[in-house]
Amino acid sequence: MSEDFVVTDRGGIVENSHRIHAAVVDAEGRLLYALGNPMRQTLARSAAKPAQALAILEASGFDRYGFEDADLALMCASHSSEERHIARTRTMLSKVQAEETDLRCGGHPSLSETVNRSWIKQDYTPTAVCSNCSGKHVGMIAGARAIGAGVEGYHLPDHPMQALVKRTVAELCDLDAQKVEWGVDGCNLPTPAFPLDRLARIYAKLASAADRHDGGEDLSTQGAALARIFRAMARYPEMVAGEGRYCTVLMRAFDGALIGKLGADASYAIGVRASDDTRRLGADGALGISVKIEDGNLEILYAAVTELLDQLGIGSPELRNPLATFHHPSRMNTTGVATGGVSFPFKLREPKPDGHDSRLAT
Amino acid sequence: MSEDFVVTDRGGIVENSHRIHAAVVDAEGRLLYALGNPMRQTLARSAAKPAQALAILEASGFDRYGFEDADLALMCASHSSEERHIARTRTMLSKVQAEETDLRCGGHPSLSETVNRSWIKQDYTPTAVCSNCSGKHVGMIAGARAIGAGVEGYHLPDHPMQALVKRTVAELCDLDAQKVEWGVDGCNLPTPAFPLDRLARIYAKLASAADRHDGGEDLSTQGAALARIFRAMARYPEMVAGEGRYCTVLMRAFDGALIGKLGADASYAIGVRASDDTRRLGADGALGISVKIEDGNLEILYAAVTELLDQLGIGSPELRNPLATFHHPSRMNTTGVATGGVSFPFKLREPKPDGHDSRLAT
Repeated sequence: MSEDFVVTDRGGIVENSHRIHAAVVDAEGRLLYALGNPMRQTLARSAAKPAQALAILEASGFDRYGFEDADLALMCASHSSEERHIARTRTMLSKVQAEETDLRCGGHPSLSETVNRSWIKQDYTPTAVCSNCSGKHVGMIAGARAIGAGVEGYHLPDHPMQALVKRTVAELCDLDAQKVEWGVDGCNLPTPAFPLDRLARIYAKLASAADRHDGGEDLSTQGAALARIFRAMARYPEMVAGEGRYCTVLMRAFDGALIGKLGADASYAIGVRASDDTRRLGADGALGISVKIEDGNLEILYAAVTELLDQLGIGSPELRNPLATFHHPSRMNTTGVATGGVSFPFKLREPKPDGHDSRLAT
Repeated sequence: MSEDFVVTDRGGIVENSHRIHAAVVDAEGRLLYALGNPMRQTLARSAAKPAQALAILEASGFDRYGFEDADLALMCASHSSEERHIARTRTMLSKVQAEETDLRCGGHPSLSETVNRSWIKQDYTPTAVCSNCSGKHVGMIAGARAIGAGVEGYHLPDHPMQALVKRTVAELCDLDAQKVEWGVDGCNLPTPAFPLDRLARIYAKLASAADRHDGGEDLSTQGAALARIFRAMARYPEMVAGEGRYCTVLMRAFDGALIGKLGADASYAIGVRASDDTRRLGADGALGISVKIEDGNLEILYAAVTELLDQLGIGSPELRNPLATFHHPSRMNTTGVATGGVSFPFKLREPKPDGHDSRLAT
């Protein structure tokens, strides 16, 4: 294990430094590149939403509710509580004949400063449908209904729907269920912790399923669900985050070639479909990338994720151009004078030739 | 040098960790206790304001402007842009016959969420008088006028007023001027970087001067100015930050026994007047404490500073009680469920018996 840092400076003097961990894996979980401790036990928070959505899609009888791909994208979202997000949440609630009062999440300030300002101006108090996790919560209600377990207490760790989520997440990570730890998330649902490279593996599997689906392969039920989740996020990036937010800008720029998702406290995961880039990097097909900033700083996370795409050479510089302001955030003071910048004094390292994870384990 | 961390968890699982550095020194600069790297070259940011204020007070002829102690407190402030702060800034401007247009800082969102909300509701665009550093800027204009250097460009590194600041800060740190580095601050004035223990030393000197003044000693001009700065901050804690903010709550709680000041990107400094506590800790008289969170996280900084006061036993637990919510910030989710906490798996360490700094230098 090495220590790697993102550094900010003021006039060339180090101001802050931020430890970074990252893993780049293929769909079989083979570690291709790493930073810091790629096995760091990490609370994936909302970056785990596609895995939670898989459990919802796999709940027998789920199809009867007629959710569209944009609904699935919202299930995987940490949305900005824009009107389109709230409206879709309400439509999704009606599809499962549930009410806002059935939701076990709470309102909170929007993740978008623009939305917040308008809420403050209108003296608006956000409620459960405004939660950035509202789509996931409606999905959990749908899943609970589908498996006949009832909506009451759908968010509690011992509810059958959460038991299904736990089995699904562990299986997707290729881990025994007891190796995955669970805390309570900001939105009140259980949230998993597992080694960081497993988060990358989940996203590699999502991208790989999309590849196999489009390649005409006859997929398993799980494979088909993974492909559908990838497609939903890639097609509706505005549902996954919101105007101007990193996930939305990233997925729009790559136009279907990848999906990316933020987790609170600065985790991030990307699934990249097979391409000349992924083959050059040593993947047989798709690959997954996971990142955690040790101290939870989001501005640094976005800068670092963009730097990693740059170091890996995924997509052309022109294609990544919409991410430039995230990569090198302007450090201007209140009079517009540049005071310093963000730098990345690290290089992704390759593990030993046999590529076995344990060589990098702590 | 050791590595020390503040840790946050979710359900007992480590979520984030934050490196911490700290130094506890007496007024001679003798290192009594340390965490992390107490010699870390650190941009003190607004924690350096009392040292910058000393240069202003020492500008010959400064007294003619008739600044009150509350004005001096505002010169040392990172205020919340409350109405009382803005009003005092305007009064101070009139004392030096200057206008808002003379200020070389810019407006920015308030450091107080309450103030921000009211600004948004009123579509109010903050201007230079609202800058949290407005008092320092008026002070610099006064100092520039006092030394006959003119107001134009008072904020630039080569202006005679800033040359005076540089000499004063280095002298107060007991460092050669070239050992102090300078960047540009958020408010557009030069901001110094020096080893973290020197920040503690400045505050120990401030507290020591207050002790000597009240003991009836005949102080040097500089000693009298340091005592006046301490008194101004201790008497007007609401001018130094604002309602509900850490510096204000801390200084109100200790009622003159100490001063404390935040620096942006999570530096902090405290000057403690001589007491049974400081003597028990090995100081002949007053002592100074400085802290830097490596990643710049303010919530963690306030928690850690309070933990250090607790570990050092400065003041009684009852006296520190108003700081409890800073010490153990509530980690509740959007439905009010507790999700985890902040812990401090470190102990301040004592350097070798001769107490010489270099034993802990990197």
